[in-house]
This record gives sequence, structure tokens and C-alpha cells, in this order.
Amino acid sequence: MIGIGVVGYGYWGPNLARNFTDLPGASLRAVCDTSEKARERAVARCPGAKVVAEARELIADGSVDAVVVTTPVKIHYEVARQALEAGKHVLLTKPMTATVDEAQRLCELADKHRRVLMVDHTFIYTGAVRKMKELISGGAIGDFLYYDSVRVNLGLFQTDVNVVWDLAPHDLSILEHLLGEQPVAVSAQGISHVEGQPENMAFVTLFYPGKRIAHVNVNWLAPVKVRQTLIGGSRKMIVYDDMEPSEKVKVYDRGIELTEVESKPEKIFELRVSYRSGDMFAPKLDGTEALRFEALHFLDCIAKGTRPLSDGQAGLRVVRALAAASEAMSTGRLVELSAAKK
Amino acid sequence: MIGIGVVGYGYWGPNLARNFTDLPGASLRAVCDTSEKARERAVARCPGAKVVAEARELIADGSVDAVVVTTPVKIHYEVARQALEAGKHVLLTKPMTATVDEAQRLCELADKHRRVLMVDHTFIYTGAVRKMKELISGGAIGDFLYYDSVRVNLGLFQTDVNVVWDLAPHDLSILEHLLGEQPVAVSAQGISHVEGQPENMAFVTLFYPGKRIAHVNVNWLAPVKVRQTLIGGSRKMIVYDDMEPSEKVKVYDRGIELTEVESKPEKIFELRVSYRSGDMFAPKLDGTEALRFEALHFLDCIAKGTRPLSDGQAGLRVVRALAAASEAMSTGRLVELSAAKK
Amino acid sequence: MIGIGVVGYGYWGPNLARNFTDLPGASLRAVCDTSEKARERAVARCPGAKVVAEARELIADGSVDAVVVTTPVKIHYEVARQALEAGKHVLLTKPMTATVDEAQRLCELADKHRRVLMVDHTFIYTGAVRKMKELISGGAIGDFLYYDSVRVNLGLFQTDVNVVWDLAPHDLSILEHLLGEQPVAVSAQGISHVEGQPENMAFVTLFYPGKRIAHVNVNWLAPVKVRQTLIGGSRKMIVYDDMEPSEKVKVYDRGIELTEVESKPEKIFELRVSYRSGDMFAPKLDGTEALRFEALHFLDCIAKGTRPLSDGQAGLRVVRALAAASEAMSTGRLVELSAAKK
Amino acid sequence: MIGIGVVGYGYWGPNLARNFTDLPGASLRAVCDTSEKARERAVARCPGAKVVAEARELIADGSVDAVVVTTPVKIHYEVARQALEAGKHVLLTKPMTATVDEAQRLCELADKHRRVLMVDHTFIYTGAVRKMKELISGGAIGDFLYYDSVRVNLGLFQTDVNVVWDLAPHDLSILEHLLGEQPVAVSAQGISHVEGQPENMAFVTLFYPGKRIAHVNVNWLAPVKVRQTLIGGSRKMIVYDDMEPSEKVKVYDRGIELTEVESKPEKIFELRVSYRSGDMFAPKLDGTEALRFEALHFLDCIAKGTRPLSDGQAGLRVVRALAAASEAMSTGRLVELSAAKK
Repeated sequence: MIGIGVVGYGYWGPNLARNFTDLPGASLRAVCDTSEKARERAVARCPGAKVVAEARELIADGSVDAVVVTTPVKIHYEVARQALEAGKHVLLTKPMTATVDEAQRLCELADKHRRVLMVDHTFIYTGAVRKMKELISGGAIGDFLYYDSVRVNLGLFQTDVNVVWDLAPHDLSILEHLLGEQPVAVSAQGISHVEGQPENMAFVTLFYPGKRIAHVNVNWLAPVKVRQTLIGGSRKMIVYDDMEPSEKVKVYDRGIELTEVESKPEKIFELRVSYRSGDMFAPKLDGTEALRFEALHFLDCIAKGTRPLSDGQAGLRVVRALAAASEAMSTGRLVELSAAKK
Repeated sequence: MIGIGVVGYGYWGPNLARNFTDLPGASLRAVCDTSEKARERAVARCPGAKVVAEARELIADGSVDAVVVTTPVKIHYEVARQALEAGKHVLLTKPMTATVDEAQRLCELADKHRRVLMVDHTFIYTGAVRKMKELISGGAIGDFLYYDSVRVNLGLFQTDVNVVWDLAPHDLSILEHLLGEQPVAVSAQGISHVEGQPENMAFVTLFYPGKRIAHVNVNWLAPVKVRQTLIGGSRKMIVYDDMEPSEKVKVYDRGIELTEVESKPEKIFELRVSYRSGDMFAPKLDGTEALRFEALHFLDCIAKGTRPLSDGQAGLRVVRALAAASEAMSTGRLVELSAAKK
Repeated sequence: MIGIGVVGYGYWGPNLARNFTDLPGASLRAVCDTSEKARERAVARCPGAKVVAEARELIADGSVDAVVVTTPVKIHYEVARQALEAGKHVLLTKPMTATVDEAQRLCELADKHRRVLMVDHTFIYTGAVRKMKELISGGAIGDFLYYDSVRVNLGLFQTDVNVVWDLAPHDLSILEHLLGEQPVAVSAQGISHVEGQPENMAFVTLFYPGKRIAHVNVNWLAPVKVRQTLIGGSRKMIVYDDMEPSEKVKVYDRGIELTEVESKPEKIFELRVSYRSGDMFAPKLDGTEALRFEALHFLDCIAKGTRPLSDGQAGLRVVRALAAASEAMSTGRLVELSAAKK
Repeated sequence: MIGIGVVGYGYWGPNLARNFTDLPGASLRAVCDTSEKARERAVARCPGAKVVAEARELIADGSVDAVVVTTPVKIHYEVARQALEAGKHVLLTKPMTATVDEAQRLCELADKHRRVLMVDHTFIYTGAVRKMKELISGGAIGDFLYYDSVRVNLGLFQTDVNVVWDLAPHDLSILEHLLGEQPVAVSAQGISHVEGQPENMAFVTLFYPGKRIAHVNVNWLAPVKVRQTLIGGSRKMIVYDDMEPSEKVKVYDRGIELTEVESKPEKIFELRVSYRSGDMFAPKLDGTEALRFEALHFLDCIAKGTRPLSDGQAGLRVVRALAAASEAMSTGRLVELSAAKK
């Protein structure tokens, strides 16, 4: 039985707490929040867990083996650092940290103390993304050509981070998971429509080796909620629409075919593009709640001493892309990410 | 009765020829195409029109008052120049010309010869865009905040122009029409997935004075056809979906409201964002074929000596934005457009 | 504070129990279920409520003022009868009873004992139906012409009632609420695709005075879930789609206009139908959970001694229509409902 | 080269004339219409065809081998009779005739004169229906259980036939094609919302041998256009939506599975229904215009002396179902169709 402590019982913390409570191999031992109201809610809903105001106290608790950190991102590093140094395993909500340095240091600490460090990249544990990963890894779409995502809705405006840090981690973690590598360069544009506030809409373009490209359109000020991603492959293409109630992933047997044709008089070879359009299919998706799947994976990694799919390095790569996007957005320049950093 | 000559009888020319034929105030006098097959089609479908191989011959025809140019863009300038110098009115398909200089020279020629110079920015003559223009001009959405468009499909790959020059003119002309001004800076990213060919997917971001921004996502290699534009206003927001069979324009009474709230202990004022969500309405749209509406407008401008909505200046502004986008895409830098150029 | 007892803690009971628990004016005093597992769940989730196996015991409890009955329909009558005779108010899930006689007797008992008798016609308390009722009552659609509903999905097959008794009560209660009167005749067709089991798909047509008609298509064996209703009015028409995440109700300014035209040679008057097509609008809907709204209404009726919107008579009219539909389906004949029964 | 004569050049005639004109094996020799305006249009659009006012004249023309009849249904019989007796092949628009007797007599005449008699059941020649036929015939959906269609829109109100005779032939001919047999009984309900006019909305239920059922919902007074059909099979189910631009046919691997379970104490066997839900796929459909495919088939049958897919017997079965539906609608009774009539 792995003892769990949850630091931060605001919006997301209760979901993680509930999932760990429901799992056979875990026991929720402690919850921490600086807000009295949040602690009152925790007392009502988490019978058997100790409820405290100080992360320090939770971390010091000997019955806590793993610490789940769902605080605002600015204190992720400090809480996770203390937990790792106290020998606890750590699960951090996204984005992993507020800076690249912090993420790197947490990775080093986890390695040093041989503890599991996992980032809550929730989407990669959904049935939809797991199915896409399976299809792409299995070669179903051929060469991966592009990822083009629209993730817009009305709200929630935040005052401490811009829309890129808020919404883009979802796409960046999906990308990181599907491609298994980091971009070589990042471009980004954005705007704030509210005086003195962070950008509320932004467009991030990521360049990968081998003519692969990704684009992420994020917006807090959209009239409708859109969660649509196009994934282009050389053989097939995918439309992933998270707003669809059931057929979230559609695989289209569509694409182009290239043939060299010799133009007679000039004796030169030209490329002719022809179009291929076949069946579409929507694979059945596993409906398990992503957080439950993720929580099980965390427990399993702890038990076996293995690295999680969304380990510290994955979280670091996402933070590095976010930092590059922010830099690109403020400077108007393409930001290159050296391979060395990887 | 205004005599019409159509230069270029390939894909688009027949549509324009048919529309002018059907209008009471016009008479199709001549059609020109260098392809013999195209001329054969023209002979079969345009009884009463002279069919020739040389634009020169058509332009020289005394019964032709106005020349409609639907050739490949690279010869737009040359045909239009000859026609204007011969005292003919000119209607050019989009984009107006292949370079900014050419567009400027045509504007000057039209002014000098006092002839109507119009660009076939078809979309601004659709019921959908006319309704949006009416709503926006009337203040229905409040301040214009952004335009965010996705215009993707499978094909038609072109070898002489990239996807920006092919698909973005639609959005740029709509933007030009709705905003009535040109961007101050343009950023663009794109990629070619086919060796040695122009970019087949691209993202263009345009910055306008006063925190207004536009984004255009164009792609020839998409699994599905998407034609969706979000328009954000300070009071209302629009979803314009050209793939919808009837309700193409939806106006959402949604947005944010800002209130200054004094945080008690610190005595500082903070901005609180609250959300407003009211009715949606989809106005009935005029179903007149856009090309017919446009052809009528061209004839009307010729008869009255007035400037068309999509005059040479509008065409020039679109070409300038296209050129800036291409430059931005190839250099990876933000391209600023000086106000002087306007 | 009104004491609530819930009889039946299977699928629907917990939802009603939770809503009454959350309301300020009510207190959940007791829960009853014959299943031991259900009682265990009730003990875990309803701290402070007495959990019993016998309805008799719950009804006899002096702290229980109102009994919520969510048992299988066949014992609705018996539980409700005991509760009313013991002076309790009663809320019954739909359909109210298994027979018309039972429904009539409960109405009489409620009147005799001056207790509130309410039927859980959940849909009439949703924001969507309340908005439609408001529009229709206010004359927005003109004369009510028809109601045409498709309510199909895969499952849940039942063995004791056919698909009409399972799914049609939703439409019949909405109709009853919108029209305020009962049909004069009912026709129905259906089929069972599973040997020895009740009908799993059925079509019910209801005729109302004044050329009004309703049609309800219900099916447990459909590949997709559809919840779509067309409502025709002489001035406007409504599409009510409960699967839409936000715009569930769309009001179309569409219809026909009739003009008498004199055909010249024959000097006779003919009717010419012309079509009208204007704006569509989707009114903002109140998002309050229907069950919460309904529970509040029940408490309010108890407090004030008023009749609920879905009182026993409304429940009786629905049961009468269900019984007529079943009779029509098995006999293949139109079943007339005498006005006297109303 | 087969000489074609078209009788009736109103709404549908020009489409058939155009398709035969475009085919290599046919030549449009004559067009007939009683309206002068229609004849003027025919003269303009059908160079080379004789244009006449009298069907008699067209039928007498020796260069006409086959007569296409697109007149109002009430004179279908008379024109087709004359044509068959004159030794011409005949293609009739749907519905084949105004009465069952007329349809039977035409079948007999065609047999007697050994001429091809075909009914323009357009939908069975679409890529969508052809694919469904292929899937169903190949066993892909298992046993055919039901067909449930909604075919509604605003307009076009007709004064001589009711909505069943206008819209239901589409579904009845698809059904006839997919099932290859006729219903044993028909029930129908409908209403006219316009005084003195035929029914403008109706619901037709058709019972087939072996627990198969079909339902057709037709309506001229609907706010939106719906063309959606659910087809239930024992193994898979189909959603056929003709309003979808590309994926018109979706095949769902969904259904129920029945297992007999022994309830222990009572030692009786009960049926347990479990649900199966797998992938969905949308097969690529042939995009050939249905009328072209149909015209080719007509020419091919003439050339080879074979029976068309939609021969006179198919047309007769549809007319028989329409007549039964009309009778059922006016009497309120189930109408049985004897097998002998088949």
C-alpha cells in the first residue's frame, strides 16, 4: 500500500485525490492546502486523511510515500524539491515548473534520490491519445508530417501565466508523447486584449527535424469551445476532436501520391501530385478515466522502479518548449533549441 | 450594353463568362485562351462571342469595353496593362498580381486612364461576408479584436505559387474589407512536405493597429475540408463557417467584462474578468451567387464611374500582405509594413 | 425543514437523494432499498439518514414528511398509496404507475388527504423545455402544429416494460406540459427483435384537437444516440436537440404563407403556398440541474400547499397515453381517448 | 446509338436530357412539353433535338428508340402505354404511376412487347445506396432488422399528391432494393395543416416477414432539411445521412448479444442482453452522378435486353406500398398486402 499526500486541494487536487482513493494499491494519507475553505472541503471528502496547512508537515509525514503537487505552478519546484529530498516520489501537475532550470534540477534530484518523478500530462493517458500513439507507432499513418491543433474557448483568464503556459502544455505533451523528441525551433505570436494582462490568444509553431511541423492555436476569448487537431501522415491522416462525444479519433485513408512524369518536348522530369481518398474509420476508444489510468501508472512505476511515460524529462521538454514559445512571442524572433539541451 | 471580353477560359473563366452572359446590362463579346481545348469549350458554350488565341486581339476588339482577366497570376500584369492602356475597364482574378510593384503600376494606370480597375475578391460579395460587414460596421460586435481562420483541404497542390498565395487571398481580402486597413506587421511560418515544391501548409499572423490581430491557417494536405473563421469583438463574437449549408454566420452574445476590484488588505486595484453568455443568432443571408453580385457591381461602377469595393487599392493591399507573408516565411522574421506604403 | 425519505436506491434514487440533501429547506431522513448492496451504498453516501429494507418502516418514520418513490414502476402504486394514507407528500418517478386505474386512485388519495402528489417528469424542469414553454406560451411560434421526436440509442433493454413505457414518458410529459391537454386518439406500431421480449422499437402517433399531431420514435437498438425534436408552429419552428452541448433549442423564423390567388380563366380561387425563411436564434438556457429545480419546486409546493407543474393529473395523462399506445400497438388499431376521461 | 425522346421538360426532365446527351451511346432526338416556355428552354439547351408539344408526335418519331417520361404522375400511364405499344423502351420518373392497376398494366405491356420498362428510382443508383446494398448483400450487417428514415424539409407543397406520394417513393425504392421483397402490411398516419390540401406530414410503418420493420417520416413543413436513415442489423448498424458532404454512410460495429443465463434458485433460463460497441467505419463512396449511372444502366439494358434493377415490377411494388399507405392513412387501419399480389 503506497501512502499518498496531496499538496493543493483547489480545482484539480480533488480529482487526483479521488482517483488515488479509489485505487486498491494506494491510500490517501494527507491533504494540504493553505486555504481554510479548501481544508474544510478536504476534511468532508477525505475521511481518514490528515488535513494540514503546511506542505512541510505533509512531506514530513512518515506514512506519505508519494507527494502529488497540484499547487500554482510557481511553487511546484519548491514543494517537489523538498519532497524528493525527503525521499518521496513526486507527481506534478502540468506544466512541470515555471522555468527550465527548475525542471532540470528536479530531474537531477529524482535521479540522485532514485525516486519516481512524474508529470501529470493527463491527455496522454486518455483513450484517444493512447489509440493515436498506437496507430502512429505501428506505422498506420506512414511518416508523421504535421500536428495542427486548435484549443480555444471562453475563459478562464489567468493573471499570472499567459494562454500559452495555460493551454499549450496539453498539445506539447501530446506532441512530445507522439513524436518522442523535442522541436529544434519555435516561433510564436500572441496578443493581450486586456491592458496589463498576459496574452490571451497565441499561435505557436514548432519545427522538428525532418520537415515535421506543429502548430498550436490557443485562445481564452473564443465564442465556442474547439478542441480539434489534424495530424498529417504520408499514408493516412487523423482528425482528433475531443468535443465529439464518442468518435474522437477519425483516421482518413487520404493523402497524396507523387509520380515523376517526363514532359515530352523538354525531356525534363516533373512531379505530378495525385490524390488518394479511401475509407475513414473511427476506432473504438478505451473509456477509462485518464486520471485513473495515470494514477495506476504512477503506482506501478513506484512499485517496479520504472520510469513513467511522462517522466521528468518529458515534463522538462514541455517546459523548454513553453519557455521558447514565450521568448519567441515577446521578441518576434524564431527561437532555436539546441540539440545539446535535450 | 457593356461589351465584355474574358481572357483565360480554364477553371474560373467560364464562371465569370456565364455570369456576365446572364446579366441584362452586359454582352459577352469575346473569349481568349491559348489552349485549343479551352477555345473549343468556349465556342460550344458562348454562342455569339468571338473566340481567339491572343489577348492582344481581344483587347483590340472595339466591341469589348471591359476585360476580365482569369489567366495564371504571372501574366495578370501584362494583360491588364495592355487593356488599361487601350482604354478598357479591367476585372482581375485574385491575387491581383504577382508583385507589389505590378499592382501599384496597375493602380496608377487605371487612375491615369480613368478606367475601373477591380479585383475579383469573390468572398466579399457573398451573402455571408456582406452580412458580417454590415454587422461589424453597425457596431454589433463592439471593437474588432481578432480574426482567426482555418482554410484547409486536400489539394489542389500547385507548382508555381505556395499555399499562401493560393488560399490566403480569400482571408486577406475579407479582412481588408471588414477592417478597411492594412496590417502593420506580418509573421508567417510554413513548410513544404514535397521536395522542391512550394510550401503546402502555412500559418500567417497579421498585426493591426490597436491590438487587433489576424491569423490564417492554410493547408493543401488536410484530411478534411475546413472553412471556419472566428471573429472576436468586445461585445459579441462571430463564427463564420462556410461549410455549413445554411447557417454560415452565427453571432454569439458572449464575451468578457472587466471590473476593477479593490483588494482590501493591500489597497490595490485588481482587474476581475467575468464572463457573459447570452443568445446566439444566425441571420438570414442573401443567397445571390457572389459572382453575379460582383459582376453587377463591376457593371454599375463602369456605368457610374465609381470605385468598386474591391478596387485596385484593395487588391494592392492584399498583394502587399501576401508578399510580406512570403518574406516572413522564408526569413523567419517579422516583416513590418510601413504606413507610408498604404 | 422538510424531512425526506427515499424509497429505491438503485439507479435514479441516489440522484434525487443527493439533490434533496443539497437543498437548504430539506433534510434526507431515511433511505429504503430491498437490496443489501444498495443499502450499503446508501449508508456510505447519506450520513445522517436512516437506512432500511422495508418501505413500511420508512413511511412509518415520524421524521419523514415526504416520500420519494424511485422503485420499479410495478410497485409505485402500493408504496405511494401507503405514503399518502400515512399523510406523507409523494414524489413518484416516471411513469407514475403501471395502469391508468392506479394513477387515478393515487390522484384521489392525494386530494382526499390534501397532500402534494408530484411526478418526476424531469425534462419539463430543464432549461431547454422551460424556455420552449415560455416561447410557445408567449405566442412566439404562433399556432402549435406538431411535435416530432426521435429518442433512440443502444440499450438499455428492459424485460418488464417495452420501449414505449421506458422512453416515451419523456416526450409525453414534455408534450403534456407544452400543450396542456391530452390526445384524442393514439396510434402505435412496434416490434420486438428479441424472442419473447417486449417491443424494443416503436412509433407512437398522437392526435390532438385542432389538427395538431405528435410523433414519438423510440428505439433501444439504434447505432447512435439521437434526441432530436422538431416543433412546428404557424409562425416559427423549433429544433430541440438534447445532444447539443450548448445550443439545445434553435428557433427558426421559417414557415409557409398562404395566399388565395384567382386563376384567371376559370375564375376560381386557388391557394398558393409561399415560403418564408428568416433568422434563426438560439436562446441562452438556464443551466440549473433539472433535478435540483424540480426538488425545489416540490418543496415549494409542500410549503405553500400548491399543485406542482407535474402533478398527479399530469402523470395520469401520461399513463393514459402510454396505455393507449400499448393497446394501439398490440391491436394495430387507432385508440380513441374520450374527453370524459380527462 | 439509341435515340432518346424526353416527354416533360419541367423540373426533372432537363437533368435526364442532359445526362443522356452526355453519354456516348445515346442521342437526344426529341423533347416534348405542353408549356411553351419549357419548349423555349429546350430549344436553347438541346441543339439537334426536335422540340414538340404533343407526346404523340414524339412517340411517332422513328428516330426515337426510348421514351423518358417526366410528366406529372397522373399522365405517366397514358404516355408510357402509347410508347410501349409503339415499340419504344420506357423510363418513367417516380412514382411509376398513380395507381396499382396502371403499374400492373404497364408491366404486362412491356413484357408483351419485349421492351425495357424502367423506373427512375434515382437513389438506388447513388454511390451511397449501392455501397449499402453491397454491404448488406455481403452479410456485413447480419440479419436486416429495421430501416428508419427521416426525410423532412420546408416545401415543396404540392396540391395534387400528398407528402407520402411525393417523398416516400425515395425510401420505398431504397427499401425495395435493399430487401428485395414487399411489405406484408402497412400502417400510416398523417395530417394536413392547410385546409383542403393533401397531407403535408406523414408517418408510414411497413411490416416485412421475419420481424423486419421499416418506418418513413416525411414532412413538407420542417424547419430544417433532414435526410437520415438508421439501418439496424443483427451484427452491425448503419447511419446513412444524405446531408453529409462526404461520409454519407457510417457502419457501426454495435449491437446486442444475447446469452441465456440460468437463474440459480428458480432453475429457469433467462435472456441476458449485453452490448457490443466496436469501431465505426465510413466506406469511400463512388461519386458518379446517380442519374448518369442510371442512364447508362438503361442504355445497357436496352442493348442487352436485360431487366433493369428498377424494372416495372420494382416500380409496381413501390406504387403498391404507396397506395396501401394512403389507404391506411385515410382509414386509420393497418392495410395487409397479400403475398399473392407480389
